[in-house]
Amino acid sequence: MKVILSGIKPTASSTHIGNYFGAIKQFVDLQKPENENLYFLANYHALTTVKSKKELEDNTWAMLREYIAYGLDPKESTIFLQSDVPEVTELAWILNCLAPMGLLERAHAYKDAMAKGKEANVGLFDYPVLMAADILIYQSIHVPVGKDQKQHVEIARDLAEKFNHHFGETFVLPEPLIMKETATVPGIDGDKMSKSYNNFVGAFEDEKEMGKKIMSIKTDSLGVDEAKDPEQSIIVQLLRLVGKPDVIKTVEEKFRKGGMGYGDAKKILLAETLEYFAPMRNRYETVSQKELESVVADGAKKARKIAQETMHEVRRKVGLV
Amino acid sequence: MKVILSGIKPTASSTHIGNYFGAIKQFVDLQKPENENLYFLANYHALTTVKSKKELEDNTWAMLREYIAYGLDPKESTIFLQSDVPEVTELAWILNCLAPMGLLERAHAYKDAMAKGKEANVGLFDYPVLMAADILIYQSIHVPVGKDQKQHVEIARDLAEKFNHHFGETFVLPEPLIMKETATVPGIDGDKMSKSYNNFVGAFEDEKEMGKKIMSIKTDSLGVDEAKDPEQSIIVQLLRLVGKPDVIKTVEEKFRKGGMGYGDAKKILLAETLEYFAPMRNRYETVSQKELESVVADGAKKARKIAQETMHEVRRKVGLV
Repeated sequence: MKVILSGIKPTASSTHIGNYFGAIKQFVDLQKPENENLYFLANYHALTTVKSKKELEDNTWAMLREYIAYGLDPKESTIFLQSDVPEVTELAWILNCLAPMGLLERAHAYKDAMAKGKEANVGLFDYPVLMAADILIYQSIHVPVGKDQKQHVEIARDLAEKFNHHFGETFVLPEPLIMKETATVPGIDGDKMSKSYNNFVGAFEDEKEMGKKIMSIKTDSLGVDEAKDPEQSIIVQLLRLVGKPDVIKTVEEKFRKGGMGYGDAKKILLAETLEYFAPMRNRYETVSQKELESVVADGAKKARKIAQETMHEVRRKVGLV
Repeated sequence: MKVILSGIKPTASSTHIGNYFGAIKQFVDLQKPENENLYFLANYHALTTVKSKKELEDNTWAMLREYIAYGLDPKESTIFLQSDVPEVTELAWILNCLAPMGLLERAHAYKDAMAKGKEANVGLFDYPVLMAADILIYQSIHVPVGKDQKQHVEIARDLAEKFNHHFGETFVLPEPLIMKETATVPGIDGDKMSKSYNNFVGAFEDEKEMGKKIMSIKTDSLGVDEAKDPEQSIIVQLLRLVGKPDVIKTVEEKFRKGGMGYGDAKKILLAETLEYFAPMRNRYETVSQKELESVVADGAKKARKIAQETMHEVRRKVGLV
């Protein structure tokens, strides 16, 4: 059995379908009987950028609500708040004492911030160590990562090896679980879908709002009867993610032959998007705050138990009497 | 009432009389009815340099035993292990997210390590933030510091101000309690007494060992009858710390007039040293491991209660729901 851990950083108030098809869907799909999944809302990590009680609280619950709606299932996964396991900050301190400065100076996120001339805070710099603590405290962990986050698992492995070397075998080295490359999801202007480009479609948006966005997808000016290249069409690219196979096929064919205008294709895309996300949108509407609180209370109990066992051993081994 | 906090870093297995007269005695003297004192063994801090279970454990108990013998009194002070209040590592993480990198890059200890070309670990770099957490978590704290540690209190004040600014009034700004300059205690070779110079006399040393060291104190070659300048004599400097006033006066006079040889003066110094430290040496011999464990168990309960109250408020204010 693989124990799989993923963190969700509550630095935004909502996700979009680019996030879903880019990452979240894979997390949801990892919930299989042969895996044991741990998902946590990384609110300690969010503090590196969020400096407002209301924003952090709202983001935390909003993200949790969306992930539950997308399909994270408390019956199949342990879902919890990072801050309900404060033991990770203790392990992070201990790992700090094993981490050479150079290890963190080479970390991507910090280097990027420096390159942009940002005044980084120590939390941003120390981020990979807290992440290593998150990973190591739950033992024998597989971490699903895209190529760009592979470094974080390498740092966790490095620190685990250093700990084992100084204090005796304690941590099983975590393994990266490289996720398949997913297609980049285009936004309504054709750029990569992103909050910061304001070109996104949200899975849980109001139907009218979603319609307005989809109807404004950028197209060329070919008329209804003209032949269109499906490969060049944002509409088709999005439809391939959410549409039923026969619908995708029909639109592609009509595009190639001519006979379907962009407006009609957009209407089809809207209908298919709503249909694809219908069960999730329904779950989103029905999940209560009370249910969310109960989910993370249960999850915290399970996660903290593992973390406390690890820390009991760690404290003993380093000599914190 | 002043709440006074001091940390004792268990990075060595024993102290010497230079440590005692340079700092420890002042800590002991701060135990007055009008003060509330908190003393902790800073074992999380020690991890920045100590990487051995046995060494850290042994140092922790050995230091505690010596401090108790010197006069730290569990009836007057709250004495505890830093690691019995793991909440400080959580606060340290939160403060990390408020600390600009530059603040720590300017910290003395880190700059010194860099200047010596040492490969620093992140713990050493992040040290002032954990120290700030130690200070702030107990609220309204006065920190007795020598001139060289004033910066640590300034960093704690700075982080407290930043926290209050972002999340609302929470921390009372800690105050440095600048300790009076104490005379530098000379070692038996005349250099500053120091473990690393191996020129020290330990207060709890075996009488024979102490005698051997004191009898080897460096002197010039003036004969018994020749006049000697007490101000130039290591023997007199040490005697002024431990001797009874009339004994000091007698030796000084006989040195000035001539009529006392260095050997006799050393014997007097040994006798006075043993007499001065006699009650402490006695306490040192009689304090049991069980008593030490009971002292820190009681201390931890008190300290942790305060820390948990602070963290309850801190977590609420930053939005760790």
